Amino acid sequence: MSPNESRITQQLDFLNEVEKLKLVFRRNRVVDRSRFENSAEHSWHIALMAIVLAEHADAGSLDVLRIVKMLLIHDLVEIDAGDTWAYDTQAQKKQPDNEESAAARLFGMLPAEQGAEFLDLWREFEARSTPEAAFAASIDALQPLTNHLISGEPEDPSLIPTKTAVLARKQHIAAASAALWAQAQSTIETSTEKGLYRNE
Amino acid sequence: MSPNESRITQQLDFLNEVEKLKLVFRRNRVVDRSRFENSAEHSWHIALMAIVLAEHADAGSLDVLRIVKMLLIHDLVEIDAGDTWAYDTQAQKKQPDNEESAAARLFGMLPAEQGAEFLDLWREFEARSTPEAAFAASIDALQPLTNHLISGEPEDPSLIPTKTAVLARKQHIAAASAALWAQAQSTIETSTEKGLYRNE
Repeated sequence: MSPNESRITQQLDFLNEVEKLKLVFRRNRVVDRSRFENSAEHSWHIALMAIVLAEHADAGSLDVLRIVKMLLIHDLVEIDAGDTWAYDTQAQKKQPDNEESAAARLFGMLPAEQGAEFLDLWREFEARSTPEAAFAASIDALQPLTNHLISGEPEDPSLIPTKTAVLARKQHIAAASAALWAQAQSTIETSTEKGLYRNE
Repeated sequence: MSPNESRITQQLDFLNEVEKLKLVFRRNRVVDRSRFENSAEHSWHIALMAIVLAEHADAGSLDVLRIVKMLLIHDLVEIDAGDTWAYDTQAQKKQPDNEESAAARLFGMLPAEQGAEFLDLWREFEARSTPEAAFAASIDALQPLTNHLISGEPEDPSLIPTKTAVLARKQHIAAASAALWAQAQSTIETSTEKGLYRNE
């Protein structure tokens, strides 16, 4: 096998492995409420959202390809670590260690320098350590809000978060884009009126 | 409403509308065969594939963001026009008109200059008129092959395409990347041995 064939084999093995992201389900639903949304289609949606909404980043002109790369890979760790509901504070605590192991295994399937690039991008996203990462994270936080408003239905009040918790959880959008934060606040307000969050 | 708020409203209306791509199902299955793959998660997969495999494009250094944009939007027209199976030649004939109408409606929801950019990108992809479009199309052709080999099972021979038809349908990969075409041919060969295509 030539060095190039060996690279492609590694890359295709990785790309076959990530098929499993289509089997990781989230708490939100698709728009006809027929099933839960999975993390692969969520990743598609936020990558497209970032492209459409990039002009609203307060940091000015960003590297959009870098943002899109982060968003396309940001949930891959869920293949091993599972999706953790944003408002499950117990599960959130254990998540970082599980996700680091998952990132090492998955990105380790790629040729070394490509795997290292992806691992760095994933850590940059998690740390929100650059304007690109902060904007990517703001889009990842906005999509579940807009999705939930059109696909959610009121549930048992003991199972839903308070408006205060949602605002706190999404507050970081403000650091990336004042315009998107205004949209997020307005979406949270409307969703609360609809009974999707507790008004406290 | 300020001009910027009005832009965001249009953009978010579009981004809500494209939720429907998660409800368009393809002929291929997810890797545990529990259900058909949908066009949103397929779009995620090929955008990531393009980033990982871009180095194998024969045209040399390409504009990867442009490729990714094309792949993220290439199937949106299916929201109105539906997915047409690659080997259903009757349905394929009617598809272009339906897809042009769908593109006009969907991209028409965006602010004018942004909608025009997306429409141009979609047409560029369809026409494979640039090295970026040819490479994007090769990835869109490769993913169903690699997916089918790991998720497909032999079906009624009268319902499956011949190896010759699959090779003809995928031949354009060769124009974008000799290395990926070699992978495609090898995948088609293995799939035929597995009974996924008729050996004729």
